[in-house]
Amino acid sequence: MYSVTVRGHIMIAHSFRGEVFGPAQRLHGATFVVDVEFRRPSLDADGIVVDIGRATDALQVVLGELNYKNLDEEPAFAGRNTTTEFLARIVFDRLVGAIGRDELGAGAHAVESMRVTLHESHIASASFEGRVGN
Amino acid sequence: MYSVTVRGHIMIAHSFRGEVFGPAQRLHGATFVVDVEFRRPSLDADGIVVDIGRATDALQVVLGELNYKNLDEEPAFAGRNTTTEFLARIVFDRLVGAIGRDELGAGAHAVESMRVTLHESHIASASFEGRVGN
Amino acid sequence: MYSVTVRGHIMIAHSFRGEVFGPAQRLHGATFVVDVEFRRPSLDADGIVVDIGRATDALQVVLGELNYKNLDEEPAFAGRNTTTEFLARIVFDRLVGAIGRDELGAGAHAVESMRVTLHESHIASASFEGRVGN
Amino acid sequence: MYSVTVRGHIMIAHSFRGEVFGPAQRLHGATFVVDVEFRRPSLDADGIVVDIGRATDALQVVLGELNYKNLDEEPAFAGRNTTTEFLARIVFDRLVGAIGRDELGAGAHAVESMRVTLHESHIASASFEGRVGN
Amino acid sequence: MYSVTVRGHIMIAHSFRGEVFGPAQRLHGATFVVDVEFRRPSLDADGIVVDIGRATDALQVVLGELNYKNLDEEPAFAGRNTTTEFLARIVFDRLVGAIGRDELGAGAHAVESMRVTLHESHIASASFEGRVGN
Amino acid sequence: MYSVTVRGHIMIAHSFRGEVFGPAQRLHGATFVVDVEFRRPSLDADGIVVDIGRATDALQVVLGELNYKNLDEEPAFAGRNTTTEFLARIVFDRLVGAIGRDELGAGAHAVESMRVTLHESHIASASFEGRVGN
Repeated sequence: MYSVTVRGHIMIAHSFRGEVFGPAQRLHGATFVVDVEFRRPSLDADGIVVDIGRATDALQVVLGELNYKNLDEEPAFAGRNTTTEFLARIVFDRLVGAIGRDELGAGAHAVESMRVTLHESHIASASFEGRVGN
Repeated sequence: MYSVTVRGHIMIAHSFRGEVFGPAQRLHGATFVVDVEFRRPSLDADGIVVDIGRATDALQVVLGELNYKNLDEEPAFAGRNTTTEFLARIVFDRLVGAIGRDELGAGAHAVESMRVTLHESHIASASFEGRVGN
Repeated sequence: MYSVTVRGHIMIAHSFRGEVFGPAQRLHGATFVVDVEFRRPSLDADGIVVDIGRATDALQVVLGELNYKNLDEEPAFAGRNTTTEFLARIVFDRLVGAIGRDELGAGAHAVESMRVTLHESHIASASFEGRVGN
Repeated sequence: MYSVTVRGHIMIAHSFRGEVFGPAQRLHGATFVVDVEFRRPSLDADGIVVDIGRATDALQVVLGELNYKNLDEEPAFAGRNTTTEFLARIVFDRLVGAIGRDELGAGAHAVESMRVTLHESHIASASFEGRVGN
Repeated sequence: MYSVTVRGHIMIAHSFRGEVFGPAQRLHGATFVVDVEFRRPSLDADGIVVDIGRATDALQVVLGELNYKNLDEEPAFAGRNTTTEFLARIVFDRLVGAIGRDELGAGAHAVESMRVTLHESHIASASFEGRVGN
Repeated sequence: MYSVTVRGHIMIAHSFRGEVFGPAQRLHGATFVVDVEFRRPSLDADGIVVDIGRATDALQVVLGELNYKNLDEEPAFAGRNTTTEFLARIVFDRLVGAIGRDELGAGAHAVESMRVTLHESHIASASFEGRVGN
């Protein structure tokens, strides 16, 4: 299995509901450094997994929808805790959508799975990985 | 699959038996920066994989049993080489025990697998990963 | 010159006023990974720059006053942009205060200067460094 | 599953053919920081996955064949784009060869799979992972 | 003293002349991850050292002149070894020029000194630091 | 001012005397990742600060005298706490000796100052910096 990983980041505000979160129930924020790994079993005719330029651009579009925002006010996340693991899934789903809309190029349809990791500090991170397509 | 990873570290002394270890047969030591990844297929009602506070505390307890020690004198490791890969398994097994004793909260019983990585320097690390529970 | 550096982190919300900040004028947030370097020209009788345990505790106290907060609502910062470089100075000044109150031990009075660095992402950081005492 | 990871690096020149590469069609270069993860389900009698000294030496031999070269002039890569993902596979295949020639010691024959990762910058990397042997 | 540091990177080919360089006399290449630290003794009215957006843009322009090139063919470097330390100075000088041409905004004229660091691998880097202006 | 930094590491056992060290009074150990920065105001005729190959070799020799040892048994350190900051000075002094014995080449005599940093974990490090020569 081959893979390529690209990196971006966002800086957001949010708060959590639930006693388990302790002081993180207050409005606070985070920098998430985001790594996306694209995986496929063979390379294309150019010798690549995906067009890394278009993959990076697509990631920037997805991250741009979240960046410099208070996620508590995003209608898409109403009633949900925007935890690191939850946001990893959001980035994953939105990138799957971008692949479906051909935004990463035709070659990206050969991507079998992705792993999205959000680093929230030097000591904690969360990931979502899953298959792309059907 | 979702995952959350937390980090801690220990500073220990030990020595190895066996020609393969060369100068590491002498009493020496290591800092192990320890990453534990907890994995489960879905999030709980709070939107999390595990209570990261309790997971970190449980890791600290496990690491506290090893930290600032000469592992050559630990009865639990008698006759064994406390290699990085061996210690990754020890941390894994002890965290499985902590989950079993409910020390990470009820939600941790949904953790399907864990990966424990010990970084021994900027150029070497070792891991153990396996299923949790039955 | 000898130095010792310890690390902590905070996760905060804030917004900025001023066109120069572009989208960061909106309420957003950041993880700041904070490194504090303590410097003195000679070691004490124990062979150390500062008691690293007490220095870490003092840093935790200073960071605890900021952590999991919306800095826009902190009276101490009213009318100020809590930029990364501004916050580096805040942490510096508060640690100088802690040294003055003997919270880092008697040896810390020999600290001549400190450098406080806040990493806001994998591609940006800010620092304040200055002399301690008189 | 246990694993051990070792690190090396190379500094090479190359160019790519294909519009997808944009300015990287020009002769340029890269530092690749190379991580190789060796995996096996159980440890040997010494408590290790592989002899880390011999594994590091074998990686150095493989990397030495590429280091400080213009890969455009390597006959082995004629007509191929030496992308990061392609080179990850090259390192993988050559290490499989080294294991087959007993260069990592008898224990290395128990290695079931490997993952080779090449970091090309602080924001991009590529990997190849696969089974070793038959 | 306050400072702000921003990061970029380039991927270049080059070769060196001189026995001291050993195999690096051959055409090879490097990824340079470039950190630029801007320093000034006080913050401006917005609470910043420099407009980080414009500083990043200016760095990208400077790096864009070098990126994806064979430095052996750059007239500006004819007869010179484009070592890591030499290139740190080039980036420094060109950023001084950009400040002089007001490309980083009026506030950047208060920058007293800069430090440019090029990381060539996980184990080696080089820097140039100096005063800006007169 | 130009500088070049090279990296190595050691894995040692030791213990400390003094209540300030708490549990670190027990025999334990550490991995120290060691960065040495060599500084001089101008480059030599080859365009370098030092011969990086010889600098790395000299660092390896200095580190080799400490590596895989119990520092409590080293006569050179009798009656001293081998703290991270103390060891930074030891590495510094021994590299100054190596420069004096011409082990880094004639060019190294132009090195004005050095900074030696020992990273003991992901959250703590210590340094010694000073002038070289007279």
